Amino acid sequence: MSEEFKSIQSVGRNGLLKAIDQFESFSNQETIKAIGDDAAVIREENGNLTLLSLDTFVEGVHFDITYTPFHHLGYKIISAAISDILAMNGKPTSVLVSMALPNRQSVQMVEDLYKGIYAAGHEYEVEVVGGDITANHSNIVITIATYGKAEAHEIAFRSGGKEGDALCVTGDLGGALAGLRVLMREKKFWKEHGDDGIQPDLSEYEFVVKRQLVPKARVDLIQALKEEEIKPSAMIDLTQGLINEVSELAGASGTGAYLYQAALPIAIETRHVADEMEEDVDRYALFGGEDLELLFTLPEKEVERFAEHFNDLTVIGRLVPKNEGMKMQTAEGEIISFDDLS
Amino acid sequence: MSEEFKSIQSVGRNGLLKAIDQFESFSNQETIKAIGDDAAVIREENGNLTLLSLDTFVEGVHFDITYTPFHHLGYKIISAAISDILAMNGKPTSVLVSMALPNRQSVQMVEDLYKGIYAAGHEYEVEVVGGDITANHSNIVITIATYGKAEAHEIAFRSGGKEGDALCVTGDLGGALAGLRVLMREKKFWKEHGDDGIQPDLSEYEFVVKRQLVPKARVDLIQALKEEEIKPSAMIDLTQGLINEVSELAGASGTGAYLYQAALPIAIETRHVADEMEEDVDRYALFGGEDLELLFTLPEKEVERFAEHFNDLTVIGRLVPKNEGMKMQTAEGEIISFDDLS
Repeated sequence: MSEEFKSIQSVGRNGLLKAIDQFESFSNQETIKAIGDDAAVIREENGNLTLLSLDTFVEGVHFDITYTPFHHLGYKIISAAISDILAMNGKPTSVLVSMALPNRQSVQMVEDLYKGIYAAGHEYEVEVVGGDITANHSNIVITIATYGKAEAHEIAFRSGGKEGDALCVTGDLGGALAGLRVLMREKKFWKEHGDDGIQPDLSEYEFVVKRQLVPKARVDLIQALKEEEIKPSAMIDLTQGLINEVSELAGASGTGAYLYQAALPIAIETRHVADEMEEDVDRYALFGGEDLELLFTLPEKEVERFAEHFNDLTVIGRLVPKNEGMKMQTAEGEIISFDDLS
Repeated sequence: MSEEFKSIQSVGRNGLLKAIDQFESFSNQETIKAIGDDAAVIREENGNLTLLSLDTFVEGVHFDITYTPFHHLGYKIISAAISDILAMNGKPTSVLVSMALPNRQSVQMVEDLYKGIYAAGHEYEVEVVGGDITANHSNIVITIATYGKAEAHEIAFRSGGKEGDALCVTGDLGGALAGLRVLMREKKFWKEHGDDGIQPDLSEYEFVVKRQLVPKARVDLIQALKEEEIKPSAMIDLTQGLINEVSELAGASGTGAYLYQAALPIAIETRHVADEMEEDVDRYALFGGEDLELLFTLPEKEVERFAEHFNDLTVIGRLVPKNEGMKMQTAEGEIISFDDLS
């Protein structure tokens, strides 16, 4: 190694992406969007758009097999993968699944994993059209390529938001993190007290545990938008937490953002978990990842009309001029910059 | 774990694929080919075909970073990935690259890897349209999704071979394995004698080492076929060794196969390495993987015409009736079944 060794750890994911950014790719004129959105967008000869995305799930980083049933894992990775295509206002139609698996894992495990993958495929009407199975020495690494379509007038980029647009979110926030907190507590208890053969009773936490283990992709929003012939000005899916995704969307749109903390949709079950853990539930909602909800923007005048037809939606803020920055108004009326939140 | 624990190791890759095969996928009517060929094939509205494939490369399984320069690795994985699309007689146009990387790796390593990926992209006119970077604890795992196109009359499946068709192969065989043997010998020497800071002189082995580290995808064959308006009746790429790929192609085509051992194209440099290692060079040619050459079938009458325009091609056998099985005629005139070869 050279004297100037710089580890990935020292520069972080963003530093790494910047390092890669120096290289110029060969480019096709049919490519409408390459890197920088939830999916790549390619124009076909007939004007329709092809959407492509790729997601990797690493044991020990994205999932923990001590508390994740494999059929749940299979379902979840398909939900997460197709969510990228939904976030472009597109229709996912096919996936390819690649697995790197340690030899010591059981065949039953692989069957359970695929059971979940195929169950999700049937639910979302997405076909498993191919893939790859290889060995790995240590852990399970799964990659899903997702293929989908959109008509040119439907496509929603992160970058299309306009000043004044309402920031809307489906469902509720922070539930997946609440579920993770419960499962991690159980794992800790199990590690400290040993396996007495008794399964923990998590029925009290069913809502949040499901949010963590078997989140649903919001196909219903995309269908409702199509039925109402409404196109979001911008859209992104919530995988890395609300603050991160609002920053990405507003950043790509060249605007600022203004959030109302009091408006954040948080389920009562999520609140109970945060209370039990003596943690701040708003931080679950702002920073908790993996909810797989969709964050999108609509011109103010369209919000009411759309909400009449799709009611699992909350307006949580609006896009503002770029020079106003990214801010949140707390329930107490204080105005905080995103930078001071984390 | 249940009392009937069956490990992946105990059933092997084929046993695993069989276990997965029990599940029925949701299916789209646009899907022409899902699992079972080099790439998935989807029909577009205008009748053209979209091709999709997914390949995973695992450190310690598919590559060894002790003797693989990272820019070579980047180049090689793109060559291997697009080879799947070429094997359908298609044109690869875009890739998505996903990496799971240990934090301890250097930024320089990632830059070198991407340098190779982008260099291959420029050479093959393939755009890097997206991807994913995540952490992994132990090793490097890279997955490439490849997207390509073909016109409906061009597509070549593994299954289209007919009795009597000539089995043709591009380039030469066994070179990548010969290169691997040289590199492994150097690694062993280095491990036993310690690193004296002197780089081994591999110039004598340049041909085979390049075949292992920077194999080229055979875009030239696909272009020549297009120019001559010749379509192979069947095609597959050589990643798992000739015997395996001939068996796959003939099996899918519902035929037997008859190989002429004396006809196998083997480079003189590959012979030298086998001699040095006191190994059988024909086994390199029959079982060595990763050559990235293309194996295809043509009706006998088209072979001569095509060979006038594309000369890096050897006829190594023919497809025969299924009941004649898979056999090879040795240089000594003996006829051996594939089953007795391995």
